[in-house]
Amino acid sequence: MQFDYATQILEGSQRAAARLISWLEDEDERAYEWMAKLYPHTGNAYIIGITGSPGAGKSTLTDKLARQIRKDGLKVGIIAVDPSSPFTGGALLGDRVRMSELSTDPEIYIRSMATRGFLGGMSKATGDVVRVLDALGKDVIIIETVGVGQDEVDIIGIADTTCLVLVPGLGDAIQSMKAGIMEIADVFVINKADKLGADQLSAEVCGRLSMDAHIKPSDWTPLVRSTVGVEDIGVLELWEAIRLHREFLEQSGSFHEKRRQRTYQETLRMIHTELFKAVREALQSNGRLDRAVEDILEGKRDPYSLMQKVVSEWLSIPQAQKEAS
Amino acid sequence: MQFDYATQILEGSQRAAARLISWLEDEDERAYEWMAKLYPHTGNAYIIGITGSPGAGKSTLTDKLARQIRKDGLKVGIIAVDPSSPFTGGALLGDRVRMSELSTDPEIYIRSMATRGFLGGMSKATGDVVRVLDALGKDVIIIETVGVGQDEVDIIGIADTTCLVLVPGLGDAIQSMKAGIMEIADVFVINKADKLGADQLSAEVCGRLSMDAHIKPSDWTPLVRSTVGVEDIGVLELWEAIRLHREFLEQSGSFHEKRRQRTYQETLRMIHTELFKAVREALQSNGRLDRAVEDILEGKRDPYSLMQKVVSEWLSIPQAQKEAS
Repeated sequence: MQFDYATQILEGSQRAAARLISWLEDEDERAYEWMAKLYPHTGNAYIIGITGSPGAGKSTLTDKLARQIRKDGLKVGIIAVDPSSPFTGGALLGDRVRMSELSTDPEIYIRSMATRGFLGGMSKATGDVVRVLDALGKDVIIIETVGVGQDEVDIIGIADTTCLVLVPGLGDAIQSMKAGIMEIADVFVINKADKLGADQLSAEVCGRLSMDAHIKPSDWTPLVRSTVGVEDIGVLELWEAIRLHREFLEQSGSFHEKRRQRTYQETLRMIHTELFKAVREALQSNGRLDRAVEDILEGKRDPYSLMQKVVSEWLSIPQAQKEAS
Repeated sequence: MQFDYATQILEGSQRAAARLISWLEDEDERAYEWMAKLYPHTGNAYIIGITGSPGAGKSTLTDKLARQIRKDGLKVGIIAVDPSSPFTGGALLGDRVRMSELSTDPEIYIRSMATRGFLGGMSKATGDVVRVLDALGKDVIIIETVGVGQDEVDIIGIADTTCLVLVPGLGDAIQSMKAGIMEIADVFVINKADKLGADQLSAEVCGRLSMDAHIKPSDWTPLVRSTVGVEDIGVLELWEAIRLHREFLEQSGSFHEKRRQRTYQETLRMIHTELFKAVREALQSNGRLDRAVEDILEGKRDPYSLMQKVVSEWLSIPQAQKEAS
């Protein structure tokens, strides 16, 4: 008899969850059967996104927030997403450091993730891992990302409440705001608030918020909270701000709409990632892509025509449209 | 008779280039015909990547570097890539600011880009724009990115020489190094070198480099240069370091291998992006995806089974394999 990962995970087995997550990261097809079985049991966890520049103290703050949430008797999952190194892979070191600090509490599950280097795969994989932790019974899942790139914006788009962590002295705060990252934040966290410049930064953010009130397409006015992560100061207030945002989402009806949009994007992403994987594997098998690249380098063909040829030949969408209707 | 964008661009028309780039950004299919025609005329420009945290002074440094390169009589293109805002789009303000500073020199062409919000689309679009500027006759193309996410790593992977800009006081420098960003740098730039802590940062980087000499899979030992961008100090030395790296690539044979790998990745990326466009359009037409999402939200189906169903129906790999062989 086959080992039943779905039942095991629903009963709270972290070992079974860890195995399934590894399969997901490796794009192992065995994962899908269990993910399909787990899916109806997901959607219960509340998802918090924590993002901000490297050095902003996100890891420490995430840990303290997790402990704070535990005080309410809620189970917590943490997904730490590191941008991958193209050569050495990313998350391993961070993983070990984090585990040692929080591993005393069995109800906090931490997973670090690094990309496997394939396009867009990180957002899909993060969504998958969220669902596994959700099925595992976690009440709150915190996704922590490093950096402010497009991939991070996509990943953080999974969250119900997004916290942007800023710190005084980390260059010009307005710089990161210019980059358009401000609009994704539901809660601004001024971390290391005991440092010089914290009050000014806080005032700057508030000023920008009142100025740009129109750019956030909802009626929610982002909250600003000050914390000192390492000293556990302001963490309760941060957790309260997150709960205020949750209440807002639930009472305004935005919650359902947000989840609908997320399901829409995730479904699209899943289909695309799976299609690309199949096409990539087919192109790479037997050195077919290698030959095409040699032809391109020798000027015998160009990648634009190749791209159009591959897509038109490999996708039989008209048939699928018939089937689906 | 149709307007011949390819000939116009090869003759140096910045207007024709700007139009073609807009089509590429909009994923307008008209672009591909001209890109296919231009492709054989590309591959001549040398590509420099400039990356680092927001606030590191990359824009100023890029401008000064461009002016320095112009002194050698070389034509320069600058592509400034901003992480997109999911709501308002990114690059417009930066674009205007930059144009006013360098627009006096007609041989410096600047283009700011923001994502249109699609996965991996930014890297593909940046590669496309590099080729347009290459065909336009630019000798050196500088790609400047904000942030340290996976998208930026992909974009910067297009460059022949990658410069990582660090500044003293911008949080813990070791933080960004932990994130695996160090391995992508061919030249480290300690900018704002007149600030407190610059010497220490420089020593730290040199220390890490001698420690981690094994992680960079090439015989190139990254160079470390100090600059004060706003005062134009050290920019000539930075340009010399870039030229040293170029000589190394050309003499060691790495240059061809690097271009081959880039072509390989770019071809894959093009197919990835084009697939997504096809998938998105097919699923969105007639509200098909909307209906599937409603079913998923109501628990009637799960996205994993849907994904596998769509992929198995749409993919005609056997036929494509026959065609390609």
